[in-house]
Amino acid sequence: MIRTLEQIKPLDKKMGQQVQQYIDTLTKPPGSLGRLEEIAIQLAEITSEAFPAVTPPGVIVFAADHGVVKEGVSAFPQEVTAQMVLNFLHGGAAINVFSKQIGATFEIVDVGVAADIHADGVIQRKIRYGTANFCEQDAMTREEAEKAIAVGYERAERMIHQGIKCLILGEMGIGNTTASSAILAVLSGQDIQTLVGRGTGIAPEKMMHKQDVITRGIEARKPDRTNPIDVLAKVGGFEIAAMAGAMLAGAVHQIPILVDGFICTVAALLAKELCEHASDYMIVGHRSVEIGHDIAIRLLGKKPILDLGLRLGEGSGAAVAFPIVQSAALMLKEMATFTSAGISDKE
Amino acid sequence: MIRTLEQIKPLDKKMGQQVQQYIDTLTKPPGSLGRLEEIAIQLAEITSEAFPAVTPPGVIVFAADHGVVKEGVSAFPQEVTAQMVLNFLHGGAAINVFSKQIGATFEIVDVGVAADIHADGVIQRKIRYGTANFCEQDAMTREEAEKAIAVGYERAERMIHQGIKCLILGEMGIGNTTASSAILAVLSGQDIQTLVGRGTGIAPEKMMHKQDVITRGIEARKPDRTNPIDVLAKVGGFEIAAMAGAMLAGAVHQIPILVDGFICTVAALLAKELCEHASDYMIVGHRSVEIGHDIAIRLLGKKPILDLGLRLGEGSGAAVAFPIVQSAALMLKEMATFTSAGISDKE
Repeated sequence: MIRTLEQIKPLDKKMGQQVQQYIDTLTKPPGSLGRLEEIAIQLAEITSEAFPAVTPPGVIVFAADHGVVKEGVSAFPQEVTAQMVLNFLHGGAAINVFSKQIGATFEIVDVGVAADIHADGVIQRKIRYGTANFCEQDAMTREEAEKAIAVGYERAERMIHQGIKCLILGEMGIGNTTASSAILAVLSGQDIQTLVGRGTGIAPEKMMHKQDVITRGIEARKPDRTNPIDVLAKVGGFEIAAMAGAMLAGAVHQIPILVDGFICTVAALLAKELCEHASDYMIVGHRSVEIGHDIAIRLLGKKPILDLGLRLGEGSGAAVAFPIVQSAALMLKEMATFTSAGISDKE
Repeated sequence: MIRTLEQIKPLDKKMGQQVQQYIDTLTKPPGSLGRLEEIAIQLAEITSEAFPAVTPPGVIVFAADHGVVKEGVSAFPQEVTAQMVLNFLHGGAAINVFSKQIGATFEIVDVGVAADIHADGVIQRKIRYGTANFCEQDAMTREEAEKAIAVGYERAERMIHQGIKCLILGEMGIGNTTASSAILAVLSGQDIQTLVGRGTGIAPEKMMHKQDVITRGIEARKPDRTNPIDVLAKVGGFEIAAMAGAMLAGAVHQIPILVDGFICTVAALLAKELCEHASDYMIVGHRSVEIGHDIAIRLLGKKPILDLGLRLGEGSGAAVAFPIVQSAALMLKEMATFTSAGISDKE
């Protein structure tokens, strides 16, 4: 799989320039659709198409558990991961509702939940029953990290072959803000205090404990900042690895990747570490209230579309942002030009 | 029409509290959908419904011309207003594209274009062939202002009776940022320099000229800040009055009003001046780059959903924001509760 990364093309800047010029002929004052124009140009650069389509989108949620929850870092008990997988299957989670709203193809993949899930419809790709507690030992082996990346790559590539035109990735894993914060601390070199927040809603004392757990984990594991597989293996998570792999598939196949919140953006950083060009194919859907998200977005070199105080994960913020990306594509495809509409241009 | 304003009810705060409690039982950490939760509560308060629907939305674009363009305040010639009305009719404008995307009922109303528009499909409610130049005389009579408000009220009420569940208002009128800036200067009492921007794209020198024109107009006309009809008559526009009237119909019928950019927000302020409760029924769709918009939003007491650097008008920013409002309504209606999904709550 890692071999395919050489196939990630640089963006088609020539197509971007062509589309920029075309946008200025549409019946609106130049530049007046702001960010939508920028998104339209990026879509053209990604897809090498003058009129890029983004529908239907595809949503893949990867679920896995985290050994570090034994340290008491999460507001919810571990069994919630498996329970939520069933909720995704029955259509009751936020990401189901928003996926349906945007007409997305949806799937849920068990890449490492700490329980057997007996239910048709869940894609079974379990690497192991949850990671190890990174305070005690490596979260996973390097082989397991690569295997999880490959699962993500495979699932995304399959959906792309089925015809999706925009890739949205989500995650479910009690404890995964802790793993993501550890990864971000290693990749950014920033103080734990500046990037560890309250996750899905822990109390302030518990947040300080969480910061302490991550500090201890990183000191004990000593991840190699220059090697994303090593970072994943030592303090990562199966669902985080799978999301990174899925993003690489999006980039290889020139499909725009709509990045969700904190955990997804950390996975995006790993994908970028695996291949610099990967991030060119990404659009960040929203700015989470999780404090490390700003740092992760900046490292990724992006600007989020929405800022709505979301902190749910599951891919929900990206799905909510999708209609904006769709508006950008439709502007390009469906608006009249000054000439075609017979309208006087600026004096 | 003005009599009906007494019928605007205060928000149903009891329903809002009930919905707030219900949202906390949904399968997500409490508060984790941020602004979407706030919007859902406001929708419940507006409609008095526990599961408010916002589809289908309705979009009404009001078009009219402005005598003040004779002073050279706009980047485009006056005939563009009529040309764009035809573009709206043929589906080539940005608002057409976004209306179609969101499945909206759409109509275009001529409430004062300075030319005869010979085309089926345009709703003919012309009050006059454009306003007078407010540097020379009142833009319109008080009777004309009231008539334009009544046109807006009538069109919105008709669409509401046809079943739309969310009201989006747009405008087309070369020169209407000048009229809107004059209205805002009167209502806010702020310096012209702090609230007059570059409209749809004039040069800096022209912007200073525009500020001078507005200052002269206000000094000559002396609008009565306490009387919105007087302000409209002296420095307003027919499409601005019609938008204000349409918003009053939305409020009377408990239909959420999704407010667009600068000109639409100024119309919203007039609606609020006509009836304080009217603004309770409004959600501001986006923050425009037109510099006066922040001032208008603050006066209205609102917080915009999007901040995408848009400055097109036509209702386009509100239409682009609509899917977010829809996400809020769908979250409420379709998500599972912890109990129904059999999920463990917080520890």
